[in-house]
Amino acid sequence: MATQDDRLQALRDINELAAFNRWANFEVVQADAQGVVLSIAWREEFGQYAGFLHAGMTAALIDTACGFAAVAATGSRVLAAHLSVNFLRPATGKRFIARARVVKPGRAQVFSSCELFAETDQGEKLVATGETLLAVPAEAAQAGG
Amino acid sequence: MATQDDRLQALRDINELAAFNRWANFEVVQADAQGVVLSIAWREEFGQYAGFLHAGMTAALIDTACGFAAVAATGSRVLAAHLSVNFLRPATGKRFIARARVVKPGRAQVFSSCELFAETDQGEKLVATGETLLAVPAEAAQAGG
Amino acid sequence: MATQDDRLQALRDINELAAFNRWANFEVVQADAQGVVLSIAWREEFGQYAGFLHAGMTAALIDTACGFAAVAATGSRVLAAHLSVNFLRPATGKRFIARARVVKPGRAQVFSSCELFAETDQGEKLVATGETLLAVPAEAAQAGG
Amino acid sequence: MATQDDRLQALRDINELAAFNRWANFEVVQADAQGVVLSIAWREEFGQYAGFLHAGMTAALIDTACGFAAVAATGSRVLAAHLSVNFLRPATGKRFIARARVVKPGRAQVFSSCELFAETDQGEKLVATGETLLAVPAEAAQAGG
Repeated sequence: MATQDDRLQALRDINELAAFNRWANFEVVQADAQGVVLSIAWREEFGQYAGFLHAGMTAALIDTACGFAAVAATGSRVLAAHLSVNFLRPATGKRFIARARVVKPGRAQVFSSCELFAETDQGEKLVATGETLLAVPAEAAQAGG
Repeated sequence: MATQDDRLQALRDINELAAFNRWANFEVVQADAQGVVLSIAWREEFGQYAGFLHAGMTAALIDTACGFAAVAATGSRVLAAHLSVNFLRPATGKRFIARARVVKPGRAQVFSSCELFAETDQGEKLVATGETLLAVPAEAAQAGG
Repeated sequence: MATQDDRLQALRDINELAAFNRWANFEVVQADAQGVVLSIAWREEFGQYAGFLHAGMTAALIDTACGFAAVAATGSRVLAAHLSVNFLRPATGKRFIARARVVKPGRAQVFSSCELFAETDQGEKLVATGETLLAVPAEAAQAGG
Repeated sequence: MATQDDRLQALRDINELAAFNRWANFEVVQADAQGVVLSIAWREEFGQYAGFLHAGMTAALIDTACGFAAVAATGSRVLAAHLSVNFLRPATGKRFIARARVVKPGRAQVFSSCELFAETDQGEKLVATGETLLAVPAEAAQAGG
């Protein structure tokens, strides 16, 4: 059985493998059976035309945090099949924090959900929510991970 | 009434304003009342852990193309409220092409949908589909643009 | 300012206006600023081909509970623009309970989310989750509800 | 290999097994490798509070048509995992026609999409679009059906 530290390290290793995550400097802050916390510091390159966080960055954070939560909970490799994002308010902040958890694990499918917060001078603000449906490849499920 | 060339130029101007789009080198290839075509050349920085196009990049292309299609069709500023992405197959290719169209324009809301293709040695392959629900801000709707 | 009892009664009145809700015998169990609880007793007519709760019934409960939560929180008329449903496990039970809350109210748009539970001999089981994006018609928003 | 008539009959048999579909009188009008057409005649019981087609009925039609398209295309049993519905305009009409097709078949997952039209005195009107992600149970996939 994986310890919490193993889990965190395993996700950090996966995170390091992804060139996009390295470019954006995604940080895996926390990982346990309850969920995963992912964080980035704002950079100008992340902006859309009005200077808010780009929808693609919002989606990247939510998708990654949801996927990592699925890996942490199931120990399996997973592939996102569907992603849904709600943009609640314009996303501005010095830092963004994605908190994801598994809603329902399964042998073939995992449902995860995520809240994305902006760190502002007035504290944390919920700026987006999202969810993913992840497929567990048949070979991964059979191999127990 | 905007000509097709005006539309294309207007979208290219918006595209230039977005720091993320400049970083990723999004190109607005085509824009008319029927829809919008957006394209990027593959770069290693776009990759997830296995080297496929990152879900965040897939989402960024679909969200941007859907939003541009809404702007081209309505002439209004719009804000994405909801984004949905289906990941049909692992996305690899030398270039990615997003083709978006407006499904239903409206005074307050616009529904757009998009197909994302990978350009490979075997031709174009559909790798993802997606859709966005965009809000037209009240002041934009009242000003007719 | 509406009291909690006013809110509950107002939703029960809307519920009574809907022929589908009367047919299915939707019951508005609870309604306050925190959310809405909607419930139905199982009937054979609600079944899909294997005898589980039909996806349409699952969607009807989630959509209705989300809409009622939006009405309870904002006091405005609302129209569902987008609905998303996750089917977590086959839905069987003697009774189904939908618990919805508003994630983000707004002048033009309201985001609601919902959990659907089946009441079984082993207690309550989460069988589906869902969310809706609701539009507040311009005239309703201007009239303050 | 199934003929087109076999396919249509197989779906009509499944349709007859579902108590909800019998209650609503869903008719499988057409079924081939290109897609499925499902239809219902309006009844007052289908209405929401303002007399339009209830969101649950819209979802039921889209979910069922998408599922039938998946069965017709793959020959496998399938289970809806995720459903997404866009409500484009208030749905009123004498009859509603759901046209669904498979966007991407797969061994473990099938992506379907659907357009829902209302038959009015002014002809057909697109009132909703939707899509489902369906899971193919492992045993069904292995048995080739």
